[in-house]
Order: sequence, then structure tokens, then C-alpha cells
Amino acid sequence: MRAAVLREGVVEARVIDDPVPGPGQLLVRSLACGICASDIHFMDHLEAGVDDDSGMSTYDRDVDIVMGHEYCAEVVDYGPGTERRIAVGTRVSSLPVLSTSTGRRIVGQNPESPGGFGEYLLLDEAITRVAASELPSEIVCIADAISVGWSAASRAQVTAREVPLVIGCGAIALSAIAQLKRLGVGPILAVDFVASRRQTALAMGADVVIDPAEVSPYQAWRDVAYGPPEAMRQLMAVAGLPGCVVFECVGIPGVLDSIIKGCERGTRIFSVGGPPEGDHLHTLTAKRKGINIQFGGGPSMQHWDEAFEAVCSGSLDVTPMLGRTVGLDGVAEALDAARDANGPVRIVVVP
Amino acid sequence: MRAAVLREGVVEARVIDDPVPGPGQLLVRSLACGICASDIHFMDHLEAGVDDDSGMSTYDRDVDIVMGHEYCAEVVDYGPGTERRIAVGTRVSSLPVLSTSTGRRIVGQNPESPGGFGEYLLLDEAITRVAASELPSEIVCIADAISVGWSAASRAQVTAREVPLVIGCGAIALSAIAQLKRLGVGPILAVDFVASRRQTALAMGADVVIDPAEVSPYQAWRDVAYGPPEAMRQLMAVAGLPGCVVFECVGIPGVLDSIIKGCERGTRIFSVGGPPEGDHLHTLTAKRKGINIQFGGGPSMQHWDEAFEAVCSGSLDVTPMLGRTVGLDGVAEALDAARDANGPVRIVVVP
Repeated sequence: MRAAVLREGVVEARVIDDPVPGPGQLLVRSLACGICASDIHFMDHLEAGVDDDSGMSTYDRDVDIVMGHEYCAEVVDYGPGTERRIAVGTRVSSLPVLSTSTGRRIVGQNPESPGGFGEYLLLDEAITRVAASELPSEIVCIADAISVGWSAASRAQVTAREVPLVIGCGAIALSAIAQLKRLGVGPILAVDFVASRRQTALAMGADVVIDPAEVSPYQAWRDVAYGPPEAMRQLMAVAGLPGCVVFECVGIPGVLDSIIKGCERGTRIFSVGGPPEGDHLHTLTAKRKGINIQFGGGPSMQHWDEAFEAVCSGSLDVTPMLGRTVGLDGVAEALDAARDANGPVRIVVVP
Repeated sequence: MRAAVLREGVVEARVIDDPVPGPGQLLVRSLACGICASDIHFMDHLEAGVDDDSGMSTYDRDVDIVMGHEYCAEVVDYGPGTERRIAVGTRVSSLPVLSTSTGRRIVGQNPESPGGFGEYLLLDEAITRVAASELPSEIVCIADAISVGWSAASRAQVTAREVPLVIGCGAIALSAIAQLKRLGVGPILAVDFVASRRQTALAMGADVVIDPAEVSPYQAWRDVAYGPPEAMRQLMAVAGLPGCVVFECVGIPGVLDSIIKGCERGTRIFSVGGPPEGDHLHTLTAKRKGINIQFGGGPSMQHWDEAFEAVCSGSLDVTPMLGRTVGLDGVAEALDAARDANGPVRIVVVP
């Protein structure tokens, strides 16, 4: 097949062997696949894959790897021991995890689990879902990106006594915002340096957007959550001050620590970004403030299904996130372009 | 008064001005005061106090600071605006936080809130508690150290479907173990390099102790929590595998990160140690494992009161933790000795 192949740190479109479905696996044709920041994290931080002991992502500079884990695909063939419950030609997607004989692998981060930046990839039949949708594949493929923030926003269980603050307005942040809105939580505050991203955040459901170059997000949060001094005194007297729930959706070193330093006592942080090089945290400050950090963990199957259904049915409109599409020959350039935070939230590869 | 005074990084017993109680404050005489690892953290890491923006601990090398925050004291005099509900001569203690006109201060970590390594200190009348106890002051003063681990163990709400793993067997770890035991949780696994500390952990309620020089604490945890392969298969089929709750009670850089790398997916970590220099964490691994970290936050008033009552009444026997006592002239040497993890859990200063 033709694929945009990562090898020795360089992505190049060329012909490689077709993947062969193993037990329980489907062979599918990639129709559209979003470029995610974690693709860039992966290719830029070989050491993170080596250093991570989960074994789900095993980078080797000297083998061909096809990235891309936000895909819409159609069924082509079946591996041994499959139920064949989904007909050939059906449009599908899945949580990007493939069960293999040697363990679970993230799709697009291992030689044995190629991703959607090639003509063909392998899916785990047990978790493959049919795309019941009239929408183009370029829209359907964004569902996976949606599921991450959707799951975080669901698991956070933000109460009516808490005010959420979303740091970053990339795909994960936008989906967290969309799901917080659907859950009726608010006001929702969202933070990004880039004006176009803040506009997209408003389109996805944010109530207040903040440019951190102009005002501290934590002061802005206090202004909204506590109000002016008189309102704050009334809050304290009647029901106590609202709690702060921060969604870290940036994934650049220093951001999580800046949240620890800036946030209120007792803040709950959902860290969904998670920089691959790790982060140095002021644990003493975290300790004094009694901060709780819930690290990502990926979407649950239930949340992935919910997000996929919302995107497929059109009840969640993700068109504000969609940028241009590129072919396999454009992947290397598009990956570079995706490093630019001023660009669209999603560039989609159509192999 | 005479006091062991920290100045320019050196502790020396000498005469300084008596503290003067401000509004709402009591003047009390220190009867006994435990030496805590956080005293050593504080004097060794000036930058941590400066860098921490909570304002509760403001180190200045060029002023006199009297450390010591685990005290039993007797009431001597009252500041303006006090209720005077506790008679002069009564033995008391308190959560080591002093309200001042410029904010809350940790006792023993600011010039305006001297600690128990001197003849006199100041307490906040509103949170001062009477020591209803026949026990010597050297025992009563250990209650504050108990309250930290007690509160963490209470707040962790470990369920019958979880198995706790306590990393470190210092004062905080031992009190966490004692409270986990009282809450009926178990089996309780405890880890320390030092044999005498492991013995004390058994005395305080640990069920299994682990020398990490001999076996990985996480493998030991799996052996206990999951059992042999056949038992593990049965667990998975019937009720699912037990969850892991790790109590980090060490406070040395690298320990929290080693827990992230070693622990099971979905582990809940209570970080009570919190090294003053912070820690570098593998956030990608934390994210993939969906780890939750609850940072200390100090004991709640309710948990402090519970721990104080348990120690005062003798229902919690803390004598296994008690080492020798020293006078003010011995504080500098005793602080050095307390750096040695092979020493007793608590050396107590009797001014």
C-alpha cells in the first residue's frame, strides 16, 4: 500500500507491505484521518515511547511506522477468528487500541498497528463501531479527538458548586468544552493565546474566553466565580465559595506547574495534555494547596461511543474544528503545519 | 526567652525577645516539641519557602526563626480580644497555623509565628485544644505528626475493593497505617529500607512489610492483592481486580515519579511527603495509566481533633515512635541526627 511512513524521524510517502489482519482483527481502508498533536509528540519524542513502560507505544527509529489514530475507514477484509458482523464496505471507526498477541498497542504508534496515514490499517473487531452517519468521512474521523475531552469532562463530574477553567483551546479542550456545555455546567472559561482558537471555543460552547497575554487566567476565574467583593462575601456567608476545576489541555512542559502555582486551594486538575517529556512540579505548593490531579487515562469505551454517536448524528457540530485536507504526499508538510498553534484545529489526511 | 534559633542556615541556642500575643492569640510555654522532617526540609531549602506563593512560610535568612510545630504547651497569658476560655497552666496543643493581621502562617516557619523549639510560642485561641490526658507531654506532642497521616488515610476513603501500599515508614506513614487499621482496611503493605522502621510499622498495624532493596514494592503488592495466577483469574472473573492506593510518605525527589512508573493502571496516589525542591514526573506514563494524585493539603480540623483525642486518650499508642529527648542546647545536633533514617521516628525537644 501507499502510506506516509515515519522512519528515522522523517515522514515520507512511499509503498510498503499491506498490513495482514491477525486473529480478531479487521483490515480496513483509511478514508480520512485527523492529524493530532500526539502524532507530533510521538515523532519528536522518541525517548518518551522508550521510557514509557506501558508497552502500548514502542518506537523504533529503524522500522517503518504509519501514524494516525483519528480515522474513518471502510471494512475490506477479516482476520481469522472474526465474527464478520460488519459487512465489507461499511464505514467504521474505533478507539485507537489494537489487541495483539503480545499485548495492547496504540494504533499509529507501533509497526504492528499501522494508523490512518496509509491506505490500509488494522482494527480490533470487538471495539469497531459502524458510522451511522450521512456526514463526510473528514467530519466522522474527528470523533476520536472529541472523545478524549468528552471523557475527561464526563469523568470530572463538575458540580453546580464548581466553575470549570479550560487551559488551551485545541481539539481536546474544545471537546471538553462541548461536553461541559451539554452537561449544563458553567460558566465555562477557556484560555488560549490565539484569537481564532478562542473564537472556536465560543462556537463550541465556552461562555468566557481569556487571552493569557492580557490577563491572568486565575484572576479572570476569580472575577467570574467569586464576582465583586460584595458578591464574594455573600457567597462565603451563604453557600461557601465555588470550587475550581481546571482542564489542562496543552501538553507543553511548564503548563501543569503554572496551574499548580496559579490556581486556588483545593483545585481539581484534569491533566489531559500530558507533555511527553514530563514536567517538573512544585509538589510543596501542590501539597499546601491540597491539589488533586487526575491524569488523562484515555476515554472509556462508553465515552468514546457517546462522542462517536454525537458526531455521527450531527448533534455535536465539529465543523468549526475542521481545516483543510491533504493527500498522503502532503502529510509531512501538514505535520509541520500542525505545529503552528495559529492553524486550524484539525488538518485531515485523505489517503 | 531562650530558644534554639535558626539564622543564616545555622541553629543555635540563645536568648531572644519573648513573643507578644496579638489579637486572638495565646502566649504558651513549650513543654515538648517533636522534630519533624519538615523542619529539616525548611532549613535546608530556603528557596522552597521563597518560591511557594501560599505566603504561609516566608523564610528570611537574616531574621531569627524558631522552628518546631509539633508541640505540647501550657497557657501563660492572653492577647487582646481573646475569650480566655482555657485557664492559665492548662496543657494544650493546636494545629500549627497562626492567624495574623497579615494572613495565615505555619507555626515555626516565620519570624512572627515562633515554634516549640523555644520557651514560649503563640497559638491561635480559636483552634487551641486542651490536652485531656494523663500521658507525658513528650507523647502528647506527637499527636500533630499523627494527624497528617491520619487525615490522609481518612480522606483516601480506601474501599474493601482496594489494597493500600504505604511508601516510607516515618511518622506520617505510621499514622496513616494506624488510621487505615482503625478503619478496618487491609491488608496494609508498608515499605522502608530500614529494618527498625519496618518493625515500628508492624507495631502500628501494618500487615506486610517490604524491604525495597530486596523486592519491588509493586510486585509485592501484586503478589498480595492478586495472589497466585489461579486466584487472580478467579478475582477477575468474579469481582474484578482490587485497586491500588499508594501513600507517598517519603518527601525525597524521585519517589513520586518512581510510584508513577511502578504502580498499576488506575492507581490513586496520596502524596503526603512532597519534597520541597519539587519533582520531575513522567506525565505521559501518568496519563496512560490514568493515575490520580491527591496532594497532602494538611489535616482538616476534624481529623486533627480526632488524632489528638486518640493520642491523648491513649487509644492510639504512639510510644513505638518515640526516641530520646533533648534540651534547647541539643536541638542543632538532634536536627542533624533526625536526618538519619536509621534513627528513631521522633526526637523530642524539651525546652
